[in-house]
Amino acid sequence: MNFPSKILEKAVEEISGLPGIGKKSAVRLALYLLKQPQSQGIVLGEAIKKLVSDIKYCKVCHNFSDEEICEICAHHNRHDELLCVVEDVRDVMAIEKTGQYYGKYLVLGGKLSPMEGIGPQQLRIESLMQKVENGLVKEVIFALSATMEGDTTVYYLYKKMKHLPLNFSIIARGISVGDELEYADEVSLGRSIRNRQTYDGAS
Amino acid sequence: MNFPSKILEKAVEEISGLPGIGKKSAVRLALYLLKQPQSQGIVLGEAIKKLVSDIKYCKVCHNFSDEEICEICAHHNRHDELLCVVEDVRDVMAIEKTGQYYGKYLVLGGKLSPMEGIGPQQLRIESLMQKVENGLVKEVIFALSATMEGDTTVYYLYKKMKHLPLNFSIIARGISVGDELEYADEVSLGRSIRNRQTYDGAS
Repeated sequence: MNFPSKILEKAVEEISGLPGIGKKSAVRLALYLLKQPQSQGIVLGEAIKKLVSDIKYCKVCHNFSDEEICEICAHHNRHDELLCVVEDVRDVMAIEKTGQYYGKYLVLGGKLSPMEGIGPQQLRIESLMQKVENGLVKEVIFALSATMEGDTTVYYLYKKMKHLPLNFSIIARGISVGDELEYADEVSLGRSIRNRQTYDGAS
Repeated sequence: MNFPSKILEKAVEEISGLPGIGKKSAVRLALYLLKQPQSQGIVLGEAIKKLVSDIKYCKVCHNFSDEEICEICAHHNRHDELLCVVEDVRDVMAIEKTGQYYGKYLVLGGKLSPMEGIGPQQLRIESLMQKVENGLVKEVIFALSATMEGDTTVYYLYKKMKHLPLNFSIIARGISVGDELEYADEVSLGRSIRNRQTYDGAS
């Protein structure tokens, strides 16, 4: 494409670097921004810069955070004896949205997947072990995707922790097998958190 | 959605303000940026801010430009006697991409469309008249969409200019009726510029 302006070309190039946005869509978005009040583009650009510059990861649970320790970990009303293990930050957001959970989280950073080269070293298992060994946690809730990799990860983690004086549970499979957590509807996901089942490795 | 971070929430809010990008996609894009090297987000944010702050419109043809007068209008090798009338900046880009045109442009800013409330006052017809009355232009090439509104606009403009000593042509309808210019393939569009036909209002 021949761009009438280097500034436009640069913006299109950067926008089309985002996943799922091709060159034509990028041109469309850039021209859209040029038709809006200037402030919209300024605020958008600033928000993106701030996002990648200023966001932190909670030192305790590895959730995104504006501070060293995230709002959930720092909240005095959240129950320390409940620890919900999830794959991803998006899963924390999905569970928080249900309003059915008052414990804490640990974000694993993925699930075991030999196909994608993700082994235990790539997950935040050391953080999880630190957390459960401190004596405050009474119940570990597995809230991973209802897929083969999810189930394998749950079993692996259970075996690592089962010598500890902990109860284990897994969110109820109200969500259909094969589903990714983040796409479940709030009601099903909320129910599956409430109806979590004791986990003994046999499932 | 419950966001673990105000910074993330703000970024998602702004990204989802773009057309065709919902909240879920915005979260996905934000998390994608957080997984990339920080510089990508910085450069993207800066490019967007620069886009809406620094881009100018060419005073002569209304194309986007980094200067007061765009590269095409300022170029000494472009023929002043050819003037191609297009609806939109995207159409200039599309025609430039064919490499088949060496004249100048005038960007109308749309086409007559009573349904959308676009009348002659909303288009840059005054600029067009100034341009054709200066005596340099010998041929006006209509390169508008092959739609009813496009044809109506061509006819309107032709009637306004036909008293002047000008030749009129219209790009060959190698592109199928009902097509928008910007979606035509380069070869057809290039051919339709080369094979432009004399226009006498009867067409």
